[in-house]
Amino acid sequence: MNNTKTAITPTRDQDFPEWYQQVIAAADLAENSDVRGCMIIKPWGYGLWEQIQRHLDRLFKDSGHENAYFPLFIPLSYLQKEAGHVAGFAKECAVVTHHRLEANADGELVPAGALTEPLIVRPTSETIIGASFARWVQSYRDLPLLLNQWANVVRWEMRPRLFLRTAEFLWQEGHTAHETKAEAVAETERMLAVYETFAKDYLALPVIVGEKSESERFPGAARTLCIEAMVQDRKAVQAGTSHFLGQNFAKTSGIQFVGRDNTRQFAFTTSWGVSTRLIGTLIMAHGDDNGVILPPRVAPAQVAILPVIPKPEQRAEILAACESLSADLRRQTWRGEPLRVKIDARDKAGGGKTWDWIKKGVPLRVEIGPRDLASGSVFVARRDQDAKARQSYQREAFTVSAAALLEEIQQSLYTRALTFRDANIRKIDTKEEFYAYFTPQNASKPEIHGGFALAHWCGDAAVEEQIKNDLKVTIRCIPFADAEPGVCPFTGKPSKQRVIFAKSY
Amino acid sequence: MNNTKTAITPTRDQDFPEWYQQVIAAADLAENSDVRGCMIIKPWGYGLWEQIQRHLDRLFKDSGHENAYFPLFIPLSYLQKEAGHVAGFAKECAVVTHHRLEANADGELVPAGALTEPLIVRPTSETIIGASFARWVQSYRDLPLLLNQWANVVRWEMRPRLFLRTAEFLWQEGHTAHETKAEAVAETERMLAVYETFAKDYLALPVIVGEKSESERFPGAARTLCIEAMVQDRKAVQAGTSHFLGQNFAKTSGIQFVGRDNTRQFAFTTSWGVSTRLIGTLIMAHGDDNGVILPPRVAPAQVAILPVIPKPEQRAEILAACESLSADLRRQTWRGEPLRVKIDARDKAGGGKTWDWIKKGVPLRVEIGPRDLASGSVFVARRDQDAKARQSYQREAFTVSAAALLEEIQQSLYTRALTFRDANIRKIDTKEEFYAYFTPQNASKPEIHGGFALAHWCGDAAVEEQIKNDLKVTIRCIPFADAEPGVCPFTGKPSKQRVIFAKSY
Repeated sequence: MNNTKTAITPTRDQDFPEWYQQVIAAADLAENSDVRGCMIIKPWGYGLWEQIQRHLDRLFKDSGHENAYFPLFIPLSYLQKEAGHVAGFAKECAVVTHHRLEANADGELVPAGALTEPLIVRPTSETIIGASFARWVQSYRDLPLLLNQWANVVRWEMRPRLFLRTAEFLWQEGHTAHETKAEAVAETERMLAVYETFAKDYLALPVIVGEKSESERFPGAARTLCIEAMVQDRKAVQAGTSHFLGQNFAKTSGIQFVGRDNTRQFAFTTSWGVSTRLIGTLIMAHGDDNGVILPPRVAPAQVAILPVIPKPEQRAEILAACESLSADLRRQTWRGEPLRVKIDARDKAGGGKTWDWIKKGVPLRVEIGPRDLASGSVFVARRDQDAKARQSYQREAFTVSAAALLEEIQQSLYTRALTFRDANIRKIDTKEEFYAYFTPQNASKPEIHGGFALAHWCGDAAVEEQIKNDLKVTIRCIPFADAEPGVCPFTGKPSKQRVIFAKSY
Repeated sequence: MNNTKTAITPTRDQDFPEWYQQVIAAADLAENSDVRGCMIIKPWGYGLWEQIQRHLDRLFKDSGHENAYFPLFIPLSYLQKEAGHVAGFAKECAVVTHHRLEANADGELVPAGALTEPLIVRPTSETIIGASFARWVQSYRDLPLLLNQWANVVRWEMRPRLFLRTAEFLWQEGHTAHETKAEAVAETERMLAVYETFAKDYLALPVIVGEKSESERFPGAARTLCIEAMVQDRKAVQAGTSHFLGQNFAKTSGIQFVGRDNTRQFAFTTSWGVSTRLIGTLIMAHGDDNGVILPPRVAPAQVAILPVIPKPEQRAEILAACESLSADLRRQTWRGEPLRVKIDARDKAGGGKTWDWIKKGVPLRVEIGPRDLASGSVFVARRDQDAKARQSYQREAFTVSAAALLEEIQQSLYTRALTFRDANIRKIDTKEEFYAYFTPQNASKPEIHGGFALAHWCGDAAVEEQIKNDLKVTIRCIPFADAEPGVCPFTGKPSKQRVIFAKSY
C-alpha cells in the first residue's frame, strides 16, 4: 500500500455513491446476486446483523415484547383490505401465482398449478398479523398484544442499492394492539425511543427523532414517527420508523374486543421496524477512505490479532502467543460482555492482512511478531485513528486496557458523527437561501449540497411537493425537539415549528 | 379439571393424530393460518425455536461455520441445472411470476409486470449458493467454505401438518465446499454427529443414525445421512439430514478451483439441515395426555412461578415473594446457563393457571400462596411426573436444588423415550412376521402397528417399492451401528446388514 494512496478508490470526496459500493466489496460485507435487487449478505456483514439483532432483541424483550412468526405469503384480498396500504405497496409486490412446475410440449419447465388467489410475498405484515390479532383478541383482558417478528420481506425496488434499498431485506417488525389510543401512542413513542437509544449507544449514530409529514407516512398509518441519520454526503437516511396505526387496521382486520364498559370496540394498533438498512447507514456515517469503520458494540470481532511470521519455523510459537492473548482478552469484559476476538492465522503476507482488517473496520488490530514476543509487547492500532498510527503496549497493560480503548473508539465515532451532523445543519429563513443551500455548487458533483435545513413550514403539502420536484428535497421529519413558531419562507404563512428538510436515500 | 379426565381430548391412545393437533393448540405453540399450509408460530412455540436455534448456532460456530444469507428467490434456470434436484422439487414450488399489482378494467387488482424468468421461492438453496461458491472459489486456498444460513423455505405440501410438514417452514441449511472427497465426507459425518448430539443432549431424543437408501436420498445428493426418531405412535420422524453431494452441484454450478497440483478441479460439497420439524418431533416423542412436555434445555421457561392469591389484598405481598424467588432462581445455573423463569401474574383462578402450564409443558411449576409465605416453603411439581404430584420444599432448599431437578427431568425424558423406542424395535427375519408386524390389529385404528423393524435387505429397490405399496412402510435408514450380514427375508438373497423399516411422518 502506497503511503499517498487510500485503500478505497474512489474516495468519498471523489464519488460518494461509488465509494459506498467499493467499501462494501472491500470489507466483504455483501454483494449483488444474479437475482435482480436481491443481495447476498456475506459472513462479515451477517455477523454485523447478528450483533444488531441480538442487542435489539434484548431491548424488545426487556420492554415486554415476545417474538412470533407469521406467514411469508399474504393473500391478495388481505393486502387490499386497507386502501391506502395496498396503494402504497402495489407497485413493488412479488406475486406468487403458481404452486408447481410442469414440462410443456417442448419439455421446458413452466409454472403450473395456478392459484385461485395470488399470494403476495410480504412487503410488511400488518394485514396478515391483523387477521391473527382479530382471532386472538376477545376481551380487553387479552390486551395489550406485544409481538415482534424477525423476518425477510420483499419490495420490488427499481433502483436497488446494497443494504439501503434491496428487493429482499431482513428486518424486524413489531406489531402491537392496545385497548386505548393513549396506550398505543405511548407504545409508538416508546419503541421510537428504543430505536433512538440503539442508534446512539450501539451504532454510534446521532439521530433526529420526530414525526413524518402526511405525505411521507407509512401507507395506512395515522402517524409515522422516525429516526433520521445524516451520512457523510450530508444526505438523510430514515433509519427506523414507528407507526401509530390508529384503528385503521383494526377496522379492516376486525380486531375487536369487549371493553371494560361491556361494549364492542376496535383496538388501536402500532407497528415499528428497522432493517438491514441500518448497516448501510452506519457504513455511510462512519466509513473513511480506507474502508468501513465499525462501532465496537456491534462489530462481529472487536479485536483482530494478526500474527507476524517472518520465518515458517516461528509460526507455532507466534500462533500460541496469539491464542494465549486471545484467551486473556476474551476474559475481559466491556459493557457487560466478554470481548470478541479473532485471530487471522491465514497464510498471507502481513501488510495485506493488516489492510484487510482496516477495510473490514475492526476496531482494534493487534500485531504480534517475534520481536514483540521477545519483549513481551504488542503493537496496537485503532481503526478510528490514522492507519499508520500504532502504539506499543506491554502485553498485560494492553489486556487490561482493551475495554477502555473500545469505549474510547465507541465514543469517538459518536462524537465525530455528531460534530459532522451539527456542522451541516443550518437554520434557513428565506426561500433564496434554501434553494441555494440545496443547489450543487459544482455541476460535476450533483450529490454535493449543503446538508440538513431547519426551516419553517406552514404545513401545506403543495409546498412539499414543489420543493421535492425542484430540488429532490423532502421533509425528513418534524422534530420533537424544536417547537418555536415562525413564518413559512415559502408561503409567508404562520408555521408551528421548524422541520428538517434534506435530500435522502 | 376432573380427576379422571385428561387435559387433552382425545388421548394418544384414542386418536394420536388428533391428539397432536390438540396438544399444539392447548400449549399455544402454533396454529394454521388462512394461507394454505402456512403456520403461525406463536410466542411459546417460537420461544422453543429460539432455544433450538441458539444452541445449534453455537454448535455450528464451534465447529468452524459462519452464518450468511442468500436470496429467497431462485431463478428457474438455476434450479434446473441439476436434473435430479429439480425433479425432486418441481411438484411443490411456489412460483413468482409478476412484480407488481395493477387495476384491470373492472378496477380489480391483478398481477402485472410479468417477469422474463419465473423465480422460485427457495425450497432449499444448493443452486443459488452454488452460484456464489463458484464466484468465491479460485484456488484450493479458498477452501473449505463452511457456511450456514437460518432461513424460511417453501415446499408446497399437499397434506400440511403443523411443524411436521408445512408449506413454509423455518430451518437452517449448512452448505460447505471442500478440496477433497474425504474432507467433504468427513464434514457430512461431522454434522450428522452434531445433530445426533443435539437431539440426544438437548431434545432428549434418542435417534438412530445411518444412511438413506438411494430411493430416499435428497434430490441431487450422492449420499444422504440422517437421524431418525421414534415417536409415541411408533412411527419414525426424519429429524435431520446431512448430504454428501459429491461433485454433482459443483459441476452444475461451476465450483472449480486450481488445485495443489495446478490443475483445475471441481470441489466436493455438502449440505445439512434441521427445521421446525424438530418441534413436531419432540411434541410427539415426549407429550402425554395432559399436553406437551418440554425438555428443560430447550424450554423457553424452565420454571413457572404461579402466585396463589386467595384475597386481593394479599396480591402485592405474594407477587413480591414470587419476584424474589424468580431473582434467586435466575442466579442459579444449570449446564452453564442461568435458569429461565417466568412468573404468571395473570388475574386467573389458580387451577386454570396450573393447567395452562401443564399443557405448555414447563418442566417445573412452583406455587406460592399465603400459607407458603408464612412457612417459608414452596410447592413444586415436575412435568415429567403425575400432574397431581407436588412436593413441598423449603424455599432455600428448592432454590439450590432446582438445577438438579431440571437435570433429572432432562434425563428422565431421554430414558423414557429410549426405553419406549427400544421396546418397539424388533428384529424380524421372515416376510410373514414383517407383514403381520406392520398390519393394524384393529381395523378402527389403522395407525397402530408394531414399530420399527430391523430386517435384512438385499439392496434391491424393487423390494422397497413393493413394501411401500403394500404397507406404507419405508427404509428409514441403513444404521451405522449394525453391520452383521444375513439373508433378505423378501428375496432370499444375501444382505450386508439389517436396515430400519418403519412407517413415517
